[in-house]
Amino acid sequence: MSEVMQTVALRDGLNGAAALIETELDALLPVPEGEEHRLVEAMRYAVMGGGKRMRGFLAIETARMFSVNITCAARVAASVEMLHAYSLIHDDLPAMDDDDLRRGKPSCHKAFDEATAILAGDALQTRAFEVLAEPDTHSDAEVRCELVLALGAASGSRGMVGGQMIDIVSEGKDLAPPLITRLQALKTGRLIQYSAEAGAILGRASGPQRHFIAAYGRDLGAAFQIADDILDAEGSDATLGKTAGKDAAQGKATMVSVMGIERARMQAEHLAKQAATYLDSFGEKAALLRALAAYTVTRRN
Amino acid sequence: MSEVMQTVALRDGLNGAAALIETELDALLPVPEGEEHRLVEAMRYAVMGGGKRMRGFLAIETARMFSVNITCAARVAASVEMLHAYSLIHDDLPAMDDDDLRRGKPSCHKAFDEATAILAGDALQTRAFEVLAEPDTHSDAEVRCELVLALGAASGSRGMVGGQMIDIVSEGKDLAPPLITRLQALKTGRLIQYSAEAGAILGRASGPQRHFIAAYGRDLGAAFQIADDILDAEGSDATLGKTAGKDAAQGKATMVSVMGIERARMQAEHLAKQAATYLDSFGEKAALLRALAAYTVTRRN
Repeated sequence: MSEVMQTVALRDGLNGAAALIETELDALLPVPEGEEHRLVEAMRYAVMGGGKRMRGFLAIETARMFSVNITCAARVAASVEMLHAYSLIHDDLPAMDDDDLRRGKPSCHKAFDEATAILAGDALQTRAFEVLAEPDTHSDAEVRCELVLALGAASGSRGMVGGQMIDIVSEGKDLAPPLITRLQALKTGRLIQYSAEAGAILGRASGPQRHFIAAYGRDLGAAFQIADDILDAEGSDATLGKTAGKDAAQGKATMVSVMGIERARMQAEHLAKQAATYLDSFGEKAALLRALAAYTVTRRN
Repeated sequence: MSEVMQTVALRDGLNGAAALIETELDALLPVPEGEEHRLVEAMRYAVMGGGKRMRGFLAIETARMFSVNITCAARVAASVEMLHAYSLIHDDLPAMDDDDLRRGKPSCHKAFDEATAILAGDALQTRAFEVLAEPDTHSDAEVRCELVLALGAASGSRGMVGGQMIDIVSEGKDLAPPLITRLQALKTGRLIQYSAEAGAILGRASGPQRHFIAAYGRDLGAAFQIADDILDAEGSDATLGKTAGKDAAQGKATMVSVMGIERARMQAEHLAKQAATYLDSFGEKAALLRALAAYTVTRRN
C-alpha cells in the first residue's frame, strides 16, 4: 500500500471504529429514570462523542487479526474508552490538573460540578470492569477474567494511577530520562499496551503472537506520549481541544523538557518504527496498526 | 444460645474476621519501591486498621455456611472492604461531604492531600475488582466473573454511586419515605447485600438459599442505615470516630428527619427482626448472622 492509501485506510479504520464504539457506549450506558440520571448523563458527557478512540481502535484492530466477533471486540473497546474517560475526568479535577477544557468542550466538573464529576469517573471505572466480565463479551469466563486482570494491572496502582502519583510527586523536580520513561510507561503506556493486548486475549493469541503485540503496544504507547508532549509544547488550545502548554506551566519533566523538541521527535519516530517492526509476522493483516504507529508521531492533535 | 452468649460469640466472630481481613489486606497491598509508594501508603492508610469490617464479616460468615475455603472467603472480604474504603475516601473529599474525620483519625485527604486521596480511592476500586478475578479467589472462572458482576451492580451507577448521586441532588429537599428508602438501599444497602451474597456465590448456593441470603442482606442493610442515621443524630464524634450531626447540618433527608427518632428506631428493629427470619432454614449455622442483625440496631458506634 502507498503511504497516501495507508493514511486514507487508517482514517477510515479510525472513523469506523469510532462509530462502532459510539453505538456500543450508547447501549452500555442507558440513562435511568430515577434521580441518578444526572450521574449517567455526566458519564455519557465524558465518554461519548469525543476523542480519537485510539485505545478502542487498537482493541478492535488486534481482535480483527484473530477473527474475533466484532460485537465482542466493540464491547472491549467501549470498556477501555470508559476507563480512559474516567481517568481524564479525575485528571481534570481542580485538586489534580485543574483543567477546564477537554476534547474541545468544558471538562466534566465544569459542565456539571465537582461532586458529580468524581462520581461519574468512579462509576465509569466500575462499568469498564463490569462490561469485561459480562457473558456477552466472551463465551469463556477464563477469557473474561483475564481481561479484567489485564485492565486492572494496566490501570491501577501498578499502572496508570501509579504513574499519575509519580507525576504528582515529581512536579517541579528534574527527572532523569529513564525515570521519565518509567513514569510515562505507567501513566499512559500501560493502558495503550493493554488496548492492543485485549484483542489478542479475546482472540486467544499464541504466546509469541501475544508477545509481539504487547511489544508493539508498549513502544506505540511510548511514542504516543512523547508526541503528545511535543504537541503540548507546540500546539494551541484550538488544535488540541485541550489546554496547551500545560507541562511547562506545571513544571512537569517530559522528554521535551529534558532533551529538547528535536531530539524528542527523533526518539518518538524511532519508537514508532520499532513498534511497527514487531508486527512483521502478521503481514498485511497488521497494515492499519503499522499505519497507526506512523500517524501517532505525525498527527497534529 | 442465650442473648449474652450470642453477643460474646458475635464479638469474637467480628474480631476474628477483622484479623483475617487485616492479614489479607496486608498481603494484597504490598508497598512498591518506586515513587508511587505514596499512593499505596494512602490506600493502606484508608483501608487498614479501621472499621467494624461488617461487610467483610458478612462475606466470611455466609461463605462459612457453605464450607468455603477460608482463604477464598478472606480475599472476597478484603475486596469488599477495599471497595468500601474507596467510597469513604471519595465521600470525605471537600467537593463531596468535606469531612476531616474518619474512623477516629484524619480522613485520607487530610492525612495526605486531595490529589493523592482521589487516586488512592481510584486504585482501591481497581484492586477490589482485580482480587475477585484472580485465580486464587476461586478455581472456577465463572464464579469469579459472577463476583465481579455482583460487585459492579452493587457499587456502580445502579448501586452505591447512583445512591450517592441521588443523595447529592436531594440535599435540602423534603423526600418522601419511599424515596429515602430507595436512596438508602442504593447508597449503602446494595453493598451490604452484596457482601452477604458474595459468600453464597463463592459457595455456589442453590437458588432458594441465595434468595434468602439476599433478602437477609437487603433488610440488614436497611436496618443498618436507619441505625446509622439515629447514631448520627444522637452520637458524638468521639463515640462514632467520624463527624456526628452531619445529616441535619447538610439538610439531608433521613428516616430520622421524616419520622422522628422513636419511629425510626422501631422501623430499624422491625427490619432487623425480619432480616433474621430469612435465615430460619439455615438453623444454628446462621446464629452469628442473626446476632449481627440484632447488634446492628443496638450498637453505639
